Amino acid sequence: MKFVGVDIGGMSVKVGIVDENGTILVKRTATCHPERPDSEIVAEIAALIGDVISEAGVRKRDLAGIGVGCPGSVYDEKGIVRYSCNINFRNTPLAAGIADLVGIGHVKLSNDANCAALGETLFGAGKGAKNSVMVTLGTGVGTGIVVDGRLLTGNRSAGAEGGHMQIDIGGRECGCGKKGHYEAYASATALIAETEEACRKYPESLLAHTAKQCGVDGKTAFAVAKCGCPVAQKVVKKYIKYVGMGLVSFANIFYPEVIIVGGGISNEGDALIKPLQRYVSRGVYGAEYNPKIKVVAASLKNDAGIVGAAALCM
Amino acid sequence: MKFVGVDIGGMSVKVGIVDENGTILVKRTATCHPERPDSEIVAEIAALIGDVISEAGVRKRDLAGIGVGCPGSVYDEKGIVRYSCNINFRNTPLAAGIADLVGIGHVKLSNDANCAALGETLFGAGKGAKNSVMVTLGTGVGTGIVVDGRLLTGNRSAGAEGGHMQIDIGGRECGCGKKGHYEAYASATALIAETEEACRKYPESLLAHTAKQCGVDGKTAFAVAKCGCPVAQKVVKKYIKYVGMGLVSFANIFYPEVIIVGGGISNEGDALIKPLQRYVSRGVYGAEYNPKIKVVAASLKNDAGIVGAAALCM
Repeated sequence: MKFVGVDIGGMSVKVGIVDENGTILVKRTATCHPERPDSEIVAEIAALIGDVISEAGVRKRDLAGIGVGCPGSVYDEKGIVRYSCNINFRNTPLAAGIADLVGIGHVKLSNDANCAALGETLFGAGKGAKNSVMVTLGTGVGTGIVVDGRLLTGNRSAGAEGGHMQIDIGGRECGCGKKGHYEAYASATALIAETEEACRKYPESLLAHTAKQCGVDGKTAFAVAKCGCPVAQKVVKKYIKYVGMGLVSFANIFYPEVIIVGGGISNEGDALIKPLQRYVSRGVYGAEYNPKIKVVAASLKNDAGIVGAAALCM
Repeated sequence: MKFVGVDIGGMSVKVGIVDENGTILVKRTATCHPERPDSEIVAEIAALIGDVISEAGVRKRDLAGIGVGCPGSVYDEKGIVRYSCNINFRNTPLAAGIADLVGIGHVKLSNDANCAALGETLFGAGKGAKNSVMVTLGTGVGTGIVVDGRLLTGNRSAGAEGGHMQIDIGGRECGCGKKGHYEAYASATALIAETEEACRKYPESLLAHTAKQCGVDGKTAFAVAKCGCPVAQKVVKKYIKYVGMGLVSFANIFYPEVIIVGGGISNEGDALIKPLQRYVSRGVYGAEYNPKIKVVAASLKNDAGIVGAAALCM
């Protein structure tokens, strides 16, 4: 059996044909025009799906369904995108639109972070786990949670917003306007802000010199830390501590077999994952009586969204 | 069909015969002797179960099973209590022991907070909800979580320890030895400590005078606040803010239909629940697009444990 997986982002839409083992057979990416009227965006996505199906030479009746992952507030059961910060969706009946235009009735929709978590848990870094938490460190912090083999979505799919878990009383302002949320400490955005702050404070540091020459992104502090710069090392250490704090909370709440770290920052590999593993192993409640929770980097990378979206139909 | 529900506590053991509607038909409480060898405690509990079955005049073959709730680290699937702070259980095969001694094979075991949450969700304050979080404000903070109608227990039942969610970086020390955990702010223990602190700071306040005369417990600050004492009002306000912060985090993670507040402090009723409802309604992410999460006080009170334990077998 084959499935279509669609991963919608603010900048691009990715569509793939996926088999029951989570292998992507054909894949295409197109630019998203997120500011257009929503019906045009839906039509564009549907056309891309049609193209990929043709290119793969698959008959529509051999496709078990289309799964779609979309950022923002998604109402899974109704197939509606309530709103999306970066895409002009407002109560958009995305699943029905795609079903109509493509001519395949079985279309399932979920939040993009949920899809990535499902993909990684079933076919990627969490393979074999029944319980997992995936934390995506990007512009914000996304969480996707699998409990006993099923996606946790909450009432009307409004849950799994772990980026807005409180980790500090009256702390940094979060993108949502509230204070002290995990996202304000653990996102790539937060790391960049901390890196810039350190550059201002220590203008003679290697970190500041590098930033002046190459600019700052989520990789800067990690890269300069590897060169021995103590200012960069401090930034990285503090950032990892914050990320670790949230992981320990998720570990205490869910006690999953595995915590999967995704998003751009997860490319730092061992420099990130090893200390996070230590935080979780030391910090989780009842560690001495319970099995170790593995902390791993996402392995499907940019394909997790496609594979996980397809898995919504499996 | 009828069920046996057993609620084990550090001070007492409660056993009830429960019907499929969650009604307790017969109930008995006995003193627990938690310092004895574990086999003796198990025998004592089994004897009490036998007595209650006899008293109810129920035939063993008409009982669908025995459900047991126990504080501490419980391995549900294996029916083992790994350890319990207040009771001398260490890897004690509690389910098998009870099954042998009572002569009923179907015995299920879970953590006491989980049982209370299941009881309240199915038959109490959360009736009708598919997703709920129950937060028990007692000596510590217990959490019991129902996702899509099923108890969230995590890998080897080690999860649902939401009392050890981080809410403040480097904050107050928790009973578990780590810093900044929810329990260190939202437990009755924390409220009592804050009350005592306020009394020391404002020895001329009504709160301090009352404390001197009557001592301090979890009710003191709430009671004196009602008499208009600004010191007590401040203690209560701060405590409710902390409790609310954690509830908002749970709301963001789970987006349940209902959050149930239990434990001794929940007896404060509207003085506690109304402001908590405001915190959750204002604080939850995406509140403008999503249904309201109801915050309610537990309604089964001391019976939640028995009813929820029985519900493990339903």
